[in-house]
Amino acid sequence: MKNVYDNSDFFGEYQSMRTKEVNANNLIEIPIMKELLPDLTDKTILDLGCGEGGMSKYFITKGAKHVTAIDISKNMIKEAKKLNPSPKIDYLVLEMEKIDTLKKKYDIVFSSLAFHYVKDFYKLISDIYKLLKKDGLLIYSQESPINTCPVITDEKQKNKIEIDGKTYHLLSDYCNEGAREVFWNGISVTKYHRSYATIVNTLTQNKFKILDIKDSYASKKAIELCPKYVGQKDKPYFTFVRAKNVIKSAKYDR
Amino acid sequence: MKNVYDNSDFFGEYQSMRTKEVNANNLIEIPIMKELLPDLTDKTILDLGCGEGGMSKYFITKGAKHVTAIDISKNMIKEAKKLNPSPKIDYLVLEMEKIDTLKKKYDIVFSSLAFHYVKDFYKLISDIYKLLKKDGLLIYSQESPINTCPVITDEKQKNKIEIDGKTYHLLSDYCNEGAREVFWNGISVTKYHRSYATIVNTLTQNKFKILDIKDSYASKKAIELCPKYVGQKDKPYFTFVRAKNVIKSAKYDR
Repeated sequence: MKNVYDNSDFFGEYQSMRTKEVNANNLIEIPIMKELLPDLTDKTILDLGCGEGGMSKYFITKGAKHVTAIDISKNMIKEAKKLNPSPKIDYLVLEMEKIDTLKKKYDIVFSSLAFHYVKDFYKLISDIYKLLKKDGLLIYSQESPINTCPVITDEKQKNKIEIDGKTYHLLSDYCNEGAREVFWNGISVTKYHRSYATIVNTLTQNKFKILDIKDSYASKKAIELCPKYVGQKDKPYFTFVRAKNVIKSAKYDR
Repeated sequence: MKNVYDNSDFFGEYQSMRTKEVNANNLIEIPIMKELLPDLTDKTILDLGCGEGGMSKYFITKGAKHVTAIDISKNMIKEAKKLNPSPKIDYLVLEMEKIDTLKKKYDIVFSSLAFHYVKDFYKLISDIYKLLKKDGLLIYSQESPINTCPVITDEKQKNKIEIDGKTYHLLSDYCNEGAREVFWNGISVTKYHRSYATIVNTLTQNKFKILDIKDSYASKKAIELCPKYVGQKDKPYFTFVRAKNVIKSAKYDR
């Protein structure tokens, strides 16, 4: 995973985007993530790609016992400690590729919009399984596979075209998985496209029991604030997964 | 499910399409379905939407003990008895909506490109679960959710546009599930669009363990015979599911 958040130009752009009230994170992604959470009372939680720690802090306000919150970016962890501090949260600079170095087991592993930056999805899911207690939950969001598929090599390349009031999408390479160089906030970012089938197969191969998969939808309120979000019904931005550890892993049982 | 196969004009068109050697069924769908089958020796199989019985007969040649093959269309069952007879196959005119009237339990429930015609997917999956022995397999194909999504109300409406060598698809209503009236062989046919998420959730809600989900791909040979099949990597025609009954159903245990 490339750490673009410690590029100072990018980080400034990112911060100004995320702090706007009307954006897809605040109006679509976070409300759905909150709906997917169980009762958090006394739960221990690992937050992968915690960013500025908004969700980590939210878990504590909802009764969680402890949160380990990791992010690849020093900038992010610094901001998180400043904006969302708590004696019950440990903020750590750590890549998701290295969570196999963590020593505890958790009730919940949570991740918001970070997994599409990880190249080796199989290892990530395998590591998470080992970090969960029996009956522990993985709850994560990612960009929808329908969104991540097109290979767009040029910043100006359109990924959709409007004709006669209908939107035609560049849906190329859906079954051709792998790296996608996309332009975001002025710099090139590498995301990894994986199909719904691969998400399901990777979870089941790693013994996860899938509880549900959801695509994003926009509430009436969100559409009032940002009318283009009506398009979520055509092409969802995000996909959400809940899966459960059903077999105790002997190796990591501690 | 509307029975279009007993409309004589439609049936004629359908037969001439399916008997061509170069079509997506022969070159893409059937080869993948055959790869997904386990050893069939002494297995009992229920074939849902058997059509002319080609796969039912194939199961017998591969050692299956018995096949119950159903289709909604009298025409199809008549053809099947003529083209693919076997003392080990029972061909029945029966809708998939009424399989809860069947009395046996099976090692395998198989279905090729029929489930997208069924309105009540939840009931279908629930009925199939009860018709499977413990460790029994459901193996089925359907049109890919990426293919079934657009609402196209006009026969001439294009569902894709080519610009600068790139294909833009009308990917509308992916998250808006339900009936789609599509024009096929000159008449209107109703298919039901369901997202990948709904397929997964319906299987897991009915206690199925998902073994794998695959999207269609074209072999080198298929692309040589029909170059446009290279587009399977962009937008697959078909999706395949294998799932297992892991809990014996007391109600249907016989």
